[in-house]
Amino acid sequence: MSDTKVHIFDTTLRDGEQVPGCKLNTEQKLVIARRLDDLGVDVIEAGFPISSPGDFTSVSEIAKIVKNATVCGLTRAVQKDIEVAAEALKYAVRPRIHTGIGTSDSHIKYKFNATREQIIERAVAAVAYAKSFVEDVEFYAEDAGRTDNEFLARVCEAVIKAGATVLNIPDTTGYCLPEEYGAKMKYLKENVTGIDKAILSCHCHNDLGLATANSIAGVINGARQIECTINGIGERAGNTSLEEVVMILRQHPYLNLDTNINSKLLYSTSRMVSESMGMPVQPNKAIVGANAFAHSSGIHQDGVIKNRETYEIIDPADVGVTESAIVLTARSGRAALAYRAKKVGYELTKLQLDTVYAEFLKFADRKKEILDTDIHEIIEVCNLKLTASA
Amino acid sequence: MSDTKVHIFDTTLRDGEQVPGCKLNTEQKLVIARRLDDLGVDVIEAGFPISSPGDFTSVSEIAKIVKNATVCGLTRAVQKDIEVAAEALKYAVRPRIHTGIGTSDSHIKYKFNATREQIIERAVAAVAYAKSFVEDVEFYAEDAGRTDNEFLARVCEAVIKAGATVLNIPDTTGYCLPEEYGAKMKYLKENVTGIDKAILSCHCHNDLGLATANSIAGVINGARQIECTINGIGERAGNTSLEEVVMILRQHPYLNLDTNINSKLLYSTSRMVSESMGMPVQPNKAIVGANAFAHSSGIHQDGVIKNRETYEIIDPADVGVTESAIVLTARSGRAALAYRAKKVGYELTKLQLDTVYAEFLKFADRKKEILDTDIHEIIEVCNLKLTASA
Repeated sequence: MSDTKVHIFDTTLRDGEQVPGCKLNTEQKLVIARRLDDLGVDVIEAGFPISSPGDFTSVSEIAKIVKNATVCGLTRAVQKDIEVAAEALKYAVRPRIHTGIGTSDSHIKYKFNATREQIIERAVAAVAYAKSFVEDVEFYAEDAGRTDNEFLARVCEAVIKAGATVLNIPDTTGYCLPEEYGAKMKYLKENVTGIDKAILSCHCHNDLGLATANSIAGVINGARQIECTINGIGERAGNTSLEEVVMILRQHPYLNLDTNINSKLLYSTSRMVSESMGMPVQPNKAIVGANAFAHSSGIHQDGVIKNRETYEIIDPADVGVTESAIVLTARSGRAALAYRAKKVGYELTKLQLDTVYAEFLKFADRKKEILDTDIHEIIEVCNLKLTASA
Repeated sequence: MSDTKVHIFDTTLRDGEQVPGCKLNTEQKLVIARRLDDLGVDVIEAGFPISSPGDFTSVSEIAKIVKNATVCGLTRAVQKDIEVAAEALKYAVRPRIHTGIGTSDSHIKYKFNATREQIIERAVAAVAYAKSFVEDVEFYAEDAGRTDNEFLARVCEAVIKAGATVLNIPDTTGYCLPEEYGAKMKYLKENVTGIDKAILSCHCHNDLGLATANSIAGVINGARQIECTINGIGERAGNTSLEEVVMILRQHPYLNLDTNINSKLLYSTSRMVSESMGMPVQPNKAIVGANAFAHSSGIHQDGVIKNRETYEIIDPADVGVTESAIVLTARSGRAALAYRAKKVGYELTKLQLDTVYAEFLKFADRKKEILDTDIHEIIEVCNLKLTASA
């Protein structure tokens, strides 16, 4: 394994699908799983097999059809959960069981009414039991974001000894700041005996809008897996957005970290998941929102028309979007109007443009967006003797 | 001015409103401006007065009605822009002119076809001219995120000498990583002569999903103003979300930074802006999304029912959301089903719950969400002799 590769663990079908209104049937899940495999994710978390008979079937069917990615099933640190997950994963080429338990004082006290020692015992038992079914066992230390680092390191050491191959350090409540989450990874990397036998994994939630930044801080500080979802869907404010972390690593080559993702499939995959779940993506969503590459202010449009890279850091084609849109509104300038007018057939002189622009602003103050048909109308109003260039 | 106060500069009506489809008329802008004033923002950027007659009127009318906040108008480093902005702001109690110019090599070369020295001259001239109209002049160094720090420091020194009170350091293309943006602020704080006479301001874009994290890195490293919008709307992938930065500072008191925002108005303000602009907020949006406080997985629901703070870091009431929703889906557990069943009148014994839960899962595998009416139906199907507790 190269040390510059960040594994992408997609949990759209598990942490994403458990969202109000996002439920999918098995057929829909199979379509998405196939696409995730094509996209190049390293791990597909396919579901939580014990949670319902439908979810068991989905995990089992996904395990059968996925060719390249590891297929993973979630469990609690409970024998029955692990047995059922192993059963659901039995046809997978690369099966992984993902088991774990809460490690923060809040979870230990209120959820488990247990002691720290009892939590370590249960964690070790779960990992060892999972290991009796599959080679690849990921352990999650739930609420690790609020878990004291010293105790967390002890838990990690114990589960590595029991055979865990991946250590998931979730910021379950989305509370951490990037510096803090990065420091946690660094602490584990430096203080856990045997850490080189396992991969540290970032699993961040977006309650404060920091999931992406926290995941990046995690990999900069030694983690090599990011758990994420398409469009950042997930419980509450969602999980880390796959498309964001992938493009951040790609756009910052000096970090010397990259993923296997075929970024040209990002936009269409986003659409597929959004439509299939009936879960809208807001227009101002990074990378995959409808406006992500749309320029409407005059200052920006002028810049983009002169040279794309004055305002765009990503070539839209790299994420599968055909071209950046120049949208005309009351904030647009002369350059954008001339550009669009030319596209619909009018070559305007500087003087003509002044006249048309004044009329355009009156139109645009009344309308949200000026369409090509409006341009014809505006020019007709101006009653100019224009030479159609087309 | 206390050194722990972070000024909130809201640009919903300028950088937000210039988005495709988000155009508002003057009446709508006045409603939002009044609300922003109530919300407690320090500065309202009301528009770009020279851009259109409608925008001039809006800025002018907003200037008349805002009581507490500074009202700001945007200009390019152009005399006519500054004159028109001053005219639009003449009725403001606290007027601010926001002028500036691109400082990155890409902008200097492609947008202005100029030299670095010429850019400094134009910046100084613009600030000095704005200062002849108003006391409070903010300077933006467009594309500061990609501007060499040493040159940026020279620009800052020059405009402070010319009278700038605020220095806006925009990451115009949304390219910076938090460490990098924070380091830029630190560099300016340590290397610009006269920096104590001005406030450094963060203006971040969300192209890679890092606007919030970058703004927080900025204030941790010495900036004391954040430019942001309600719901993070804005050009392309949008600006920093006001609600996110405000709640991050509030939830991390050890940072010793806070704002004047009345957080209880955040949710209703988000709704108002979304409806008024016709700009949807995705359900998984941090703080203000419809699902931000909704729990649906069994593991989480069980925890929240036992003790809210196992999974929630923010009390929904603090941002004006009435209560966290327990939504029933196929991923929900027994605890959530019992909780909701009780709410609609059924007190289930452990044995009864087992029967009802099995039936519930069959229903839930077919339906996205189980409503109260479905619970009645499920229990009827189970044909249990239950005691209605209500």
